[in-house]
Amino acid sequence: MSSAVDPTRINDLPALVGQTVTVSGWVTHLRSSGKVAFVVMRDGTGTLQCVVAKKEVSEATWEQFGLLTLEASFSVTGAVRADARQVGGVEIGVKELTLLGPSALDYPIQPKEHGVDFLMDNRHFWLRTPRQVAIMRIRNEIEQAIHDFFYERGFLRVDTPILTAAIGERSGLFATEYFDEGTAYLAQTGQLYGEAAAAAFGKIYTFGPTFRAEKSKTRRHLTEFWMIEPEVAFNDTHANMRLQEDFVSFLVQRVLERRPAELKELERDVSKLEGIKAPFPRIDYTDAVATLQRKGSKVTWGEDLGAEDEALLVADYETPIFICNYPKEAKAFYMKENPADPRTVLCDDMLAPEGYGEIIGGSQREDDYDKLLHRIHEEKLPVEAYSWYLDLRKYGTFVHSGFGLGLERTVAWICGSPHIRECIPFPRLLNRLHP
Amino acid sequence: MSSAVDPTRINDLPALVGQTVTVSGWVTHLRSSGKVAFVVMRDGTGTLQCVVAKKEVSEATWEQFGLLTLEASFSVTGAVRADARQVGGVEIGVKELTLLGPSALDYPIQPKEHGVDFLMDNRHFWLRTPRQVAIMRIRNEIEQAIHDFFYERGFLRVDTPILTAAIGERSGLFATEYFDEGTAYLAQTGQLYGEAAAAAFGKIYTFGPTFRAEKSKTRRHLTEFWMIEPEVAFNDTHANMRLQEDFVSFLVQRVLERRPAELKELERDVSKLEGIKAPFPRIDYTDAVATLQRKGSKVTWGEDLGAEDEALLVADYETPIFICNYPKEAKAFYMKENPADPRTVLCDDMLAPEGYGEIIGGSQREDDYDKLLHRIHEEKLPVEAYSWYLDLRKYGTFVHSGFGLGLERTVAWICGSPHIRECIPFPRLLNRLHP
Repeated sequence: MSSAVDPTRINDLPALVGQTVTVSGWVTHLRSSGKVAFVVMRDGTGTLQCVVAKKEVSEATWEQFGLLTLEASFSVTGAVRADARQVGGVEIGVKELTLLGPSALDYPIQPKEHGVDFLMDNRHFWLRTPRQVAIMRIRNEIEQAIHDFFYERGFLRVDTPILTAAIGERSGLFATEYFDEGTAYLAQTGQLYGEAAAAAFGKIYTFGPTFRAEKSKTRRHLTEFWMIEPEVAFNDTHANMRLQEDFVSFLVQRVLERRPAELKELERDVSKLEGIKAPFPRIDYTDAVATLQRKGSKVTWGEDLGAEDEALLVADYETPIFICNYPKEAKAFYMKENPADPRTVLCDDMLAPEGYGEIIGGSQREDDYDKLLHRIHEEKLPVEAYSWYLDLRKYGTFVHSGFGLGLERTVAWICGSPHIRECIPFPRLLNRLHP
Repeated sequence: MSSAVDPTRINDLPALVGQTVTVSGWVTHLRSSGKVAFVVMRDGTGTLQCVVAKKEVSEATWEQFGLLTLEASFSVTGAVRADARQVGGVEIGVKELTLLGPSALDYPIQPKEHGVDFLMDNRHFWLRTPRQVAIMRIRNEIEQAIHDFFYERGFLRVDTPILTAAIGERSGLFATEYFDEGTAYLAQTGQLYGEAAAAAFGKIYTFGPTFRAEKSKTRRHLTEFWMIEPEVAFNDTHANMRLQEDFVSFLVQRVLERRPAELKELERDVSKLEGIKAPFPRIDYTDAVATLQRKGSKVTWGEDLGAEDEALLVADYETPIFICNYPKEAKAFYMKENPADPRTVLCDDMLAPEGYGEIIGGSQREDDYDKLLHRIHEEKLPVEAYSWYLDLRKYGTFVHSGFGLGLERTVAWICGSPHIRECIPFPRLLNRLHP
């Protein structure tokens, strides 16, 4: 009953040339001349050409080959042979082949064009296709790179709560009943908890899902998305931007180094990524508005920048850029008033090049108790729910800054993907809760 | 305005002996002889003794010292001196000291005993105390070790959705309205999605928050907790258990190697952890029931094991143990029927020693379409919601296994903590949604 050895995977095979192995996976391609048959197997770790010569296998194995269909699961036993023409440099000369799980002929994803809704309905199968596998491998690389970046720099990961009382941003909240405690809301950000944690641990980051119950239907919005939110005690807005540019450069260079095959599968123009190295240009909001007006935008000082304005600004650059120090009214209540111009706050948005737009929003946080309380009143937020957050300013307040990086937007940019929906395994959109 | 250099941290200082630095942090201890004053600063990366000799500082600095209170934030400038008696081997001879953020004298956490409810109400401050810092540093180490373990072994991390249609386990669901799509439920597990991902990527794991709206009030239950759920194509139940014991051994040994100071702070008996190395004993459920009956338990064959029964079983061991192949009725619908005894399923629970109980539940998954459909009907689950899950058995079904590790339970065991509530930054319990 017990298998003494763990299953061999396709990506193990280059080290096993000349040996006889058994590998299991699924059919992605089939062809036969009547004398020699070829099956391409995928197992999630790679693809493998399996060569079945009718003369060299039993009648049973040849019959099993005849039963294979697209995405049927099967195992092969045979010798691993070097073959430079193959991905991974090996193929297998089949001695035995066994159909494990048949696949009905109506397997949904066929080698033809499918509509987006159909692909989304069949996301559990769509994920198996080469483009989606490449995106998910790059997503995984970015995620591990994020953890490595912060771990190596002494940041503590802090998992902030999803179920919260009325705290965070203002609208678009998912609500659920929470026993006798009333209504809980799904977190839109972990930042406020991150600030408390920064006072305890110095340098922290969060890494978790966040939620927006907004009726946005764009290429850049999900109702459930993952966000990474570092928060650092005693960092001012300048140190905060340095951290952001170092961080984003690290992620891009890491993917270039370790995922070249996946970038190639995606036909990504890597020359656009190779130059992504800190520092990035810093543009004051006020200067940005002047530039935009020169370029014909109707934006006026005081407004937030829309996606079109952002695109106009980044068009002049090949790296991400920072837009700094927005007007107070355009930004969240917790951002620190700019001492040099109290109409503005010490904040930055990082805009990715090639039209990908905002991937980071960051700021120095308001550390003055009275100013923060005033802003909470101005925004008509429930003061009681913020009492512990105000406490951080009452007992040993401190300069601190942080930012939020949207994971799926970052993956979309690095992959060159036109739509965020393919940058998360099971996307949640306005009209999409399945599968 | 711009600080050209990022702030120096206490844990940077051992490399800066002899240099003059500025460091910022919070007061944890104060004392003065009238001529020499000592302040201990914490900044989240470490603690630092700051020595203020009245004769060697300005009157202004001596006055600033007089304004310090517990948890006030302040900065000091001075020379880093080697001092073997200090944590980290250094202290600072203060030249200048500046109070940055005063702390009111009613700072909630004082050096005395506080009740648990009070500490929980002040979790944002409680987190700053040495025991809580040590637990959070160990939690962080375990989290990074989890990512490293799977990354190095070629597993793809897959972020499964939190907002789901009616799928997963059966009761205790948090619900929220989801636009025109009806009710969404917060995920109790990512496993079902993990199974789809295993067919796409071979070896995967999830790492995310999960939710149980259950009225459990024990030392071992949270309503929101983090779970790690690997899923592996072509692994049978035996390979699954080997993966579990390798994984848990890796985590324990990593904490022993890299977090000795934190284990010491917690007064953890590390001799109990040093022997945690694979393999772990495997005990068949049927044998476990016989053992329990011999020991005086009233358990009968067919029932799930309660916490007391588990404690009786692990009492004989110094490593975690597996209890395998439970009766079908005691376990979830998706577990594979045991061919050797169809009354049971191919599953395991891993019980931690020292009374910590279940930290992992794992199983081989039912890969037979008809048997799975039968179980879904038996459990009166909504078949339509499971259609994509059933699809995985209709098109190329495959042997696969996986498990779920409860993060907070694992942290509690490794830390020797009596209660799971201190093993997550901001715990969510039946009566606890704040802060």
